[in-house]
Amino acid sequence: MNFVQGLHCVFCDAIFPARALYTCPRCGITGILDVEYDYAGIARSLTRRRLAGRADRSQWRYRELLPIREDAVLPALPVGWTPLMPAASLARHVGVGTLFLKDDGRNATGSLKDRASAIGVVKAREKRQRIIACASTGNAASSCAGMAASMGLRSVIFVPERAPEAKVTQLLIFGATVFRVRGSYEQAFQLCQQACERWGWYNRNSAINPYLVEGKKTVALEIGEQLEWQPTDWMAVSVGDGCTIAAVWKAFREMKSLGWIARTPRMLGVQAEGAAPITTAFRSGAPLVPIEPQTIADSIAVGVPRNWKKAVLAIQESGGAMINVSDDEILGAIRYTGRLSGVFAEPAAATAVAGLRRAVGERTVGRKESAVAVITGSGLKDIQSARTAVGKPFDLSPDGAGLDDILKGQNLIVRTAS
Amino acid sequence: MNFVQGLHCVFCDAIFPARALYTCPRCGITGILDVEYDYAGIARSLTRRRLAGRADRSQWRYRELLPIREDAVLPALPVGWTPLMPAASLARHVGVGTLFLKDDGRNATGSLKDRASAIGVVKAREKRQRIIACASTGNAASSCAGMAASMGLRSVIFVPERAPEAKVTQLLIFGATVFRVRGSYEQAFQLCQQACERWGWYNRNSAINPYLVEGKKTVALEIGEQLEWQPTDWMAVSVGDGCTIAAVWKAFREMKSLGWIARTPRMLGVQAEGAAPITTAFRSGAPLVPIEPQTIADSIAVGVPRNWKKAVLAIQESGGAMINVSDDEILGAIRYTGRLSGVFAEPAAATAVAGLRRAVGERTVGRKESAVAVITGSGLKDIQSARTAVGKPFDLSPDGAGLDDILKGQNLIVRTAS
Repeated sequence: MNFVQGLHCVFCDAIFPARALYTCPRCGITGILDVEYDYAGIARSLTRRRLAGRADRSQWRYRELLPIREDAVLPALPVGWTPLMPAASLARHVGVGTLFLKDDGRNATGSLKDRASAIGVVKAREKRQRIIACASTGNAASSCAGMAASMGLRSVIFVPERAPEAKVTQLLIFGATVFRVRGSYEQAFQLCQQACERWGWYNRNSAINPYLVEGKKTVALEIGEQLEWQPTDWMAVSVGDGCTIAAVWKAFREMKSLGWIARTPRMLGVQAEGAAPITTAFRSGAPLVPIEPQTIADSIAVGVPRNWKKAVLAIQESGGAMINVSDDEILGAIRYTGRLSGVFAEPAAATAVAGLRRAVGERTVGRKESAVAVITGSGLKDIQSARTAVGKPFDLSPDGAGLDDILKGQNLIVRTAS
Repeated sequence: MNFVQGLHCVFCDAIFPARALYTCPRCGITGILDVEYDYAGIARSLTRRRLAGRADRSQWRYRELLPIREDAVLPALPVGWTPLMPAASLARHVGVGTLFLKDDGRNATGSLKDRASAIGVVKAREKRQRIIACASTGNAASSCAGMAASMGLRSVIFVPERAPEAKVTQLLIFGATVFRVRGSYEQAFQLCQQACERWGWYNRNSAINPYLVEGKKTVALEIGEQLEWQPTDWMAVSVGDGCTIAAVWKAFREMKSLGWIARTPRMLGVQAEGAAPITTAFRSGAPLVPIEPQTIADSIAVGVPRNWKKAVLAIQESGGAMINVSDDEILGAIRYTGRLSGVFAEPAAATAVAGLRRAVGERTVGRKESAVAVITGSGLKDIQSARTAVGKPFDLSPDGAGLDDILKGQNLIVRTAS
């Protein structure tokens, strides 16, 4: 917290001291706050060289850029420093010159949300709170529950009815008290808000808690460092609530102002066609109009995104673009990303790859340009969707009858028997 | 391959040059071979200090101890260097002084098998083969398919009927040709063997391919380095085929002979009660008697383990022990490991933790001793088993009716409303 200067309202531009605030006291619940730092001070304290010498390979290696105390108790569960891998075959298929996948499916509980939840449990502990609560379509919830387990906190989770079974099971495994709300994400969110206010639990909702997004930021700080401070032309990120892409952009702005990178990449925000209110707002220039979301990509099925404004600003400031893809394109991207790179992405994660491919088709992204696609969650978290993307195994009796014919059909007989 | 001296038969002790051999030409299919290295040469080339200076954080950082060429083409998908984390609350519950979890659920496709498959695809490429095949209860298969995808190879996978759906879906996502054999693992294994011989595919079966186990070894090399060359008293590893625990032990022997560690840990091999032929063989001193496996821990449900001898030797040489746990103990361990550490383990992985707890109860492991439990796979790979380990969420209508009563029952109301 050494370098935190205050909380800045994204809507009314007022600045508040960094105390126990969730949203702007003037604007109310929609007044999203953003953490401001003393970058001059950070630049003196943290250099690229000093960073290179740090043994800590987790998101805490960037602690000067995080809103946590120097003596903060950190979860034992390691978060961050997920692999950034080149994906040459996938790049060819998508149509870009160079493509990297940042695989946050390898994070502690299998998604990028672990980065935010790790901040959440650290802040809860800082405030001596024993219970942390969250409403989520799944990933934020399981990461919150996992991080709470690691810190010895209790967690209370409100999930909408459609949350995939794997994600709910994860919650229960982590010892969370889980409420499955017969309704939408929005209704689960409201119930969680009320309970947090009423019972004084720590509120882990990226939609209103300004500190969480700072954790998400570390995915891009890592990308910067892993690319040896030479960012790609584009960053493809799927967009639901809007705070992940805002966090990614914030990190690049910070790296620029600290003199770590010479130029920032353009943000490609990708939404599912059936849940694209931010694309609509970005294109129209008008305030966000809530919609009823309809997509298989449950992690980004957000009809009332709270961080839409931050997302729109990120796209604008970076000179980027918003694009929508269909559920069929998302399923296709799960399949070809797996086949061509060995990375199994959940639908919301594959959305970024699908968006990149479409953006090349529409000439928004050039064929010689480079890009990173952020794989925000593991495909193991939503097997049901993946199943609809692929065929079936061939059933075989133990005597192997019919095997040769299938092999011939699959072009798998490469030589005659010796 | 610089330091490979030959292949040593575990049964007849003959030594062969490291050529295109799978099993001992004298003993036949049961003649498991073991790779021998020139450790004096390795000791001159690779020191702890030189290792510390290596930027590569993957299993390839130990390449001198692996049977691959110096100019080998490596998969883009990063393998290894998974977190080793302290688990203080879990240590108290299990009853040991210090406990670390080595979380190989964070590996590329979610299991330790990625380490073996990575060697498999490198060797296949070395031999200019385009197709790699494997029979597996799941993890070896999905890792083989994922690694093959990353290397641009085709994969053919034979799975037994009971392979969990998540694992089969993973295979299909990675573009594998999958044969689901209406029978046991043993039958799937036989069909795969025949097909490999007949069609000349590269055979990725740890049961017979001597190189794969060398990849598994890296999990323990990492543990050694992550513990700053001060191994714990015990290494708890679940046992199915037997080759993982043999690999772990081999790594510690190697670290000892290279002078990297002063003493080796004792191996605690843990089997499921319904699939414990190696425990029986270890205790009786007699050769292995095949059984019909029956356990929820599908990854270690092996009735005819090919590497049983290697496993028994590992336990004996290390001064360790074999122990069995029930399926109920395994389910319990999934639950308390998740709740107390934030790590979601698959049944076979939780088996190691359950075994450690039982070993403390039986006074095999002392209450002040230290241990590492190897989490061999992610719980997301087998949601069905996990579901039986936990309760259900509370269903709630959108108006939140009944919420307060449930919270009171759960002891979650920590202050009165303000």
